Amino acid sequence: MDRILIRNGLIRTIKVHPLDNVAIPVENAPGGSEFAGGLRCREDIPQGHKVSLTNLKKGDAVIRYGVSLGKLRQDAPAGTHIGEHILELPKAPGLDELPWGNSITVSLPKAPVTVFDGYEVPGNFFAGTRNILGIMSSVQCVAGVLNVAVEKIKTELLPKYPAVDDVVAINHAYGCGVAINTRDAAIPIRTLKNLLHNPNFGGELMVVALGCEMLTLDMLLRPEENISENVIVLQNQQGFHGMIDAILGMAEGKLQKLNRRKRVSLPLERLCIGLQCGGSDAFSGITANPAAGYASDLLVGAGGTAIFSEVTEVRDGAAFLSARCIDRETSQKLARELGWYDAYLEQGGTDRSANPSPGNKQGGLVNIMEKAMGSIAKSGNAPIVEVLAPGETPAKRGLIFAATPAGDFLCGPLQLAGGITLQVFMTGRGTPYGLAPAPVIKVSSRTALKNIWQDLIDIDAGTIAAGEETIEETGLRLFNMIIETASGRHKPWAEVYRLCNDLAIFDPTAAT
Amino acid sequence: MDRILIRNGLIRTIKVHPLDNVAIPVENAPGGSEFAGGLRCREDIPQGHKVSLTNLKKGDAVIRYGVSLGKLRQDAPAGTHIGEHILELPKAPGLDELPWGNSITVSLPKAPVTVFDGYEVPGNFFAGTRNILGIMSSVQCVAGVLNVAVEKIKTELLPKYPAVDDVVAINHAYGCGVAINTRDAAIPIRTLKNLLHNPNFGGELMVVALGCEMLTLDMLLRPEENISENVIVLQNQQGFHGMIDAILGMAEGKLQKLNRRKRVSLPLERLCIGLQCGGSDAFSGITANPAAGYASDLLVGAGGTAIFSEVTEVRDGAAFLSARCIDRETSQKLARELGWYDAYLEQGGTDRSANPSPGNKQGGLVNIMEKAMGSIAKSGNAPIVEVLAPGETPAKRGLIFAATPAGDFLCGPLQLAGGITLQVFMTGRGTPYGLAPAPVIKVSSRTALKNIWQDLIDIDAGTIAAGEETIEETGLRLFNMIIETASGRHKPWAEVYRLCNDLAIFDPTAAT
Repeated sequence: MDRILIRNGLIRTIKVHPLDNVAIPVENAPGGSEFAGGLRCREDIPQGHKVSLTNLKKGDAVIRYGVSLGKLRQDAPAGTHIGEHILELPKAPGLDELPWGNSITVSLPKAPVTVFDGYEVPGNFFAGTRNILGIMSSVQCVAGVLNVAVEKIKTELLPKYPAVDDVVAINHAYGCGVAINTRDAAIPIRTLKNLLHNPNFGGELMVVALGCEMLTLDMLLRPEENISENVIVLQNQQGFHGMIDAILGMAEGKLQKLNRRKRVSLPLERLCIGLQCGGSDAFSGITANPAAGYASDLLVGAGGTAIFSEVTEVRDGAAFLSARCIDRETSQKLARELGWYDAYLEQGGTDRSANPSPGNKQGGLVNIMEKAMGSIAKSGNAPIVEVLAPGETPAKRGLIFAATPAGDFLCGPLQLAGGITLQVFMTGRGTPYGLAPAPVIKVSSRTALKNIWQDLIDIDAGTIAAGEETIEETGLRLFNMIIETASGRHKPWAEVYRLCNDLAIFDPTAAT
Repeated sequence: MDRILIRNGLIRTIKVHPLDNVAIPVENAPGGSEFAGGLRCREDIPQGHKVSLTNLKKGDAVIRYGVSLGKLRQDAPAGTHIGEHILELPKAPGLDELPWGNSITVSLPKAPVTVFDGYEVPGNFFAGTRNILGIMSSVQCVAGVLNVAVEKIKTELLPKYPAVDDVVAINHAYGCGVAINTRDAAIPIRTLKNLLHNPNFGGELMVVALGCEMLTLDMLLRPEENISENVIVLQNQQGFHGMIDAILGMAEGKLQKLNRRKRVSLPLERLCIGLQCGGSDAFSGITANPAAGYASDLLVGAGGTAIFSEVTEVRDGAAFLSARCIDRETSQKLARELGWYDAYLEQGGTDRSANPSPGNKQGGLVNIMEKAMGSIAKSGNAPIVEVLAPGETPAKRGLIFAATPAGDFLCGPLQLAGGITLQVFMTGRGTPYGLAPAPVIKVSSRTALKNIWQDLIDIDAGTIAAGEETIEETGLRLFNMIIETASGRHKPWAEVYRLCNDLAIFDPTAAT
């Protein structure tokens, strides 16, 4: 990404691409402020919002990131605030005949290290970064009992097994009262199945079932896993106390096994991380996301895997992603998954314009096209080797696109199902988001956020907008924190405080 | 409901209605067993499953509860097991021109008491049965922080306020990443808004927001409620410690106010309970549900309110419900809500036949028609005075139908949004279900369940099948437990152990 800083004595602005006819001020620009080149601000322009750099006419395209964000509904002489109301959202680009393979970056930056200290999981494509006992409920009905049991396990058992990091109840609102046989039920079912097999659970499977639910155990477990050593059916237990005893008994056996595990030095090809952004602003796309993209390139260049997601936030940049797909099959799957999501939204009486949120808009993002270009920046420059449907796991290593909803609490569990063992989370407005099964590193797009949330933001990328660091420097800092965190030598803030969102499961089917 | 017991020395069967051509054995009937009247069991018939009482031919209707469960796909001579595979599900009855007002029961049984000890809530239609501080997250992003804060409140503050029963985090997976402006978004939004106003929270409102979410505070709160005394916005706090301090500070103020509240004797018209069943079997419709229906009639007869729900479980009995509606408007709303649900299911590529669950079927329920007739029994005989769309609150008192999904964890929160302060939950297969904001009384349909779940089942209605109690006797026992529980003199098991499901919010819209 080209980055041109226009400086003057008063207010700095950032223009992302040479073709851009707008820039964003890095602080609030009151009407009348002067910009470089003699341009004067015609009205108040909030931090991160867009100002026109030339005299634009009604019908002209507003260009940012070198692409059109839409056409103007009215004239906008140089120095005008380009707000949502004067811009027309372009149509979503077509998905037929997407290009592929014509924008493949073969040379990625070289990572300073090529190994991390992780936990081997026999038979798993990826290794763990944490050693956690995960206990899944097969249906929400058992969540109450499981929560009580997990509290007891944490208090009474976990202290005896110091090599185990945590015990996590994998509760969810799926499992019954659903149309289990409809085609799209495959999505929540494989999500739960793959979530249970996340490498951070070390291959020790434990499921608490009710006994009469629609999601039967053979849907969650392979035949060789669906055995009494892994499964407790509450309807077969002697009352509440029998249930608690059964769960604690099985948990103790699993904890004993997990406690014997040791970290070993592993090549980075065994590491799979997720990239996600939430509460974005106009800086996300020029600071935090490109820094994360650079860290991702370092990881992928060293053989590792990075998964990025959020369909509605890349939809308008479909052609850019497709051009980075390594083969026709991958670009076709991309088109298929984006098309599925278009249809899903249409059936729900909506479309991609329902994203962005009011907070995104306050932060200066006028529409989903602008948000998309900023969002895609988190994927760096590596080629896209695979596209996953929601809840699927990778069959390849490298940069992977998982076609998930953009909502943080749906995207996170889907990335966990995809096998990530660590997540990097970029935020502009700020969210205290966290995931129980994996550490989450939070990156702020603005230094103002880091200043107010000192003890929640792990890395500040606002330094890039301030001109204090380059994207590459911040990206390298982030990469190093990824390795330290993955290796268990560093805990991000969300892990320190045990902040975690519910594992909300993406279920596009109807509730019965 | 007519109930005819056919006894013989070996195996007892129950026939519900004089017109029925099937009955169900109260225990497993091995092939060859003899029934009263010389009928011999032609094959093994599991407990609760149906046996043909006469020689039925292919195409004959199988009659139970006096209605057709569907037509036979093959001959079924007397003594045949009438399983799912030999029965054709009838079409869902039409919703045009439903009858109304032609089956109004004016004389309800007389309750032994007409008052309970509850908590007044100024301006609220109903009174509370518990004194709970409820803290709602406006979006899932803040759930991690809120959960940590609530743990601290429970440990550090709650013991200082002994008149307060509990502190509950009202977390949910709604709030962002959604199409907030689509028509059906009204459902989750009003559900959350009304949930926050549940009488058990005593009118002390407290919302923890992020600051950039789609569900803005003005959607959750009335203007006079949307004030700094009730709302904490995390993006405005100084980091994690600032957030925790702010939440604990506001919580302490609310706890002080709640701690001054006292129970007072109130007429039963101030009590609103919910009726729900889950994990049903063939006995649910002849023991637990009719007993609950009798208790509901006692309550409604004394001026109280009972809400029953679960659209797919009453859909096939639409005409029976409609005939009990007190006016044309109510029956039309019933038709509209059932029609909305038909369309919602169709759009999801499914229909009402996706219910029942495998456990229901193992328990002897062949199809949704049979499940519906058993499910409706929980509504007793009172006239239906109002029909609620999902998440709405009543404007009337009496027996009310809330058109919710049948899944327990979606139905419960919708009934709580409707204002229930206590729930009666009937179960055949058994579920340890519970709700944090209200006590849940669990009623078993079979004594075998009570025997294995001594410390989870509050009332056993299996005594009815065993001939030890009448429906009215069990119903009266249940009514008395409702009054004792509502008055704070009794805690059901789920409350004792603090078993509670997540408050899963019914959201028929698409995730973006």
